[in-house]
Amino acid sequence: MQIALALYDRFTALDIVGPFQVLAELPAATTTFVAEQRGPVLDHTRSLSLVATAGFDEMAAPDVIVVPGGFADPNMSDDDAVVQWIRDVHPATTWTTSVCTGSLYLARAGVLDGIEATCHWGALDLLGSLGAIPSADRVVIRGKIATAAGVSAGIDLGLTLAAEIAGEDVAKAIQLAIEYDPQPPFDAGSPAKAGPELVELMAAILLDPERTTERAET
Amino acid sequence: MQIALALYDRFTALDIVGPFQVLAELPAATTTFVAEQRGPVLDHTRSLSLVATAGFDEMAAPDVIVVPGGFADPNMSDDDAVVQWIRDVHPATTWTTSVCTGSLYLARAGVLDGIEATCHWGALDLLGSLGAIPSADRVVIRGKIATAAGVSAGIDLGLTLAAEIAGEDVAKAIQLAIEYDPQPPFDAGSPAKAGPELVELMAAILLDPERTTERAET
Repeated sequence: MQIALALYDRFTALDIVGPFQVLAELPAATTTFVAEQRGPVLDHTRSLSLVATAGFDEMAAPDVIVVPGGFADPNMSDDDAVVQWIRDVHPATTWTTSVCTGSLYLARAGVLDGIEATCHWGALDLLGSLGAIPSADRVVIRGKIATAAGVSAGIDLGLTLAAEIAGEDVAKAIQLAIEYDPQPPFDAGSPAKAGPELVELMAAILLDPERTTERAET
Repeated sequence: MQIALALYDRFTALDIVGPFQVLAELPAATTTFVAEQRGPVLDHTRSLSLVATAGFDEMAAPDVIVVPGGFADPNMSDDDAVVQWIRDVHPATTWTTSVCTGSLYLARAGVLDGIEATCHWGALDLLGSLGAIPSADRVVIRGKIATAAGVSAGIDLGLTLAAEIAGEDVAKAIQLAIEYDPQPPFDAGSPAKAGPELVELMAAILLDPERTTERAET
């Protein structure tokens, strides 16, 4: 089984490394990081690069694809390289999946028209405007399409997929291997739990002008 | 604030990307991936490289260090490059931290002598044999040393540290940004919850001879 994990400039690292760490342990699976071109791809913080070992043109028939979210999404067009690759490979995949705003790429590729899907809570409206039926669930499976909510939800997606692919016992064994027994020190992981003041603080932190400029320049 | 995230051959990617994704959003923080030499560093699955942008010799006085676990640990010696770097920089850090078997590196560096610390559940005995007092807690803070349990526990560590460094509201805002509202599809994240049969299955999956040989060769 060939599992292809997509990278593109300004992706969010945990979006893709979460499901990767689960899926890489599946028996008889090969995981490959792919991008428009081979080589290092810089994340949205501009401080971490992951290396793509194959170009999209070298990965024409993956069984499973995972598309992360990131901060390039507002500039995305329908002829974006990731979108084109999804359009090309989706008909033959066993699973077409995304984490966070990765589902916006699936939507642009026409994969989510009229289909229920999720993404980061801050982009659910945008997802709807692109033709999907937005869901606030953490992991949504419709046929062979599996989408996850924001960033850390990719771990839950990975385990859900692992069970679908290799059975619940294998998924549980991998959960044990990565000691996924979460104990968040706070309970602020959704807008409803965090409340409006923390939503504002989050926006201020993420959109801090100094940081934003720095990230735009590099 | 300079946050240095260590890489070495056969590290586990989620160990370091979990805390990175939290700490990188701290206001006024700079995150840098460091290794013995600059350049790509291959993880334990042999399918993912993260890029170190500084050598240990270029990062002589970080405020915070994060050391991930991995599969090189059994071969580790007291003059390992990571161990030497920890020994050198620890006296001046604000926080010296680890995820998973990263605490074995801290122990080898002499940082954990007689100090309570945690690591992946499968290596707690080894941690004890290296002079630390093993704890099965998910995150353990003793003075300026913070250690986390296996792999995914690095996210809980990251949020705990974020609160210590920048206050609870900032930590909660980052939790909201990464939508860390975990919903594991199964409840098998610790040996007690998983039971002995899943512990055996996990070992069989991780130590599959074909996979192990492949990973040893690359």
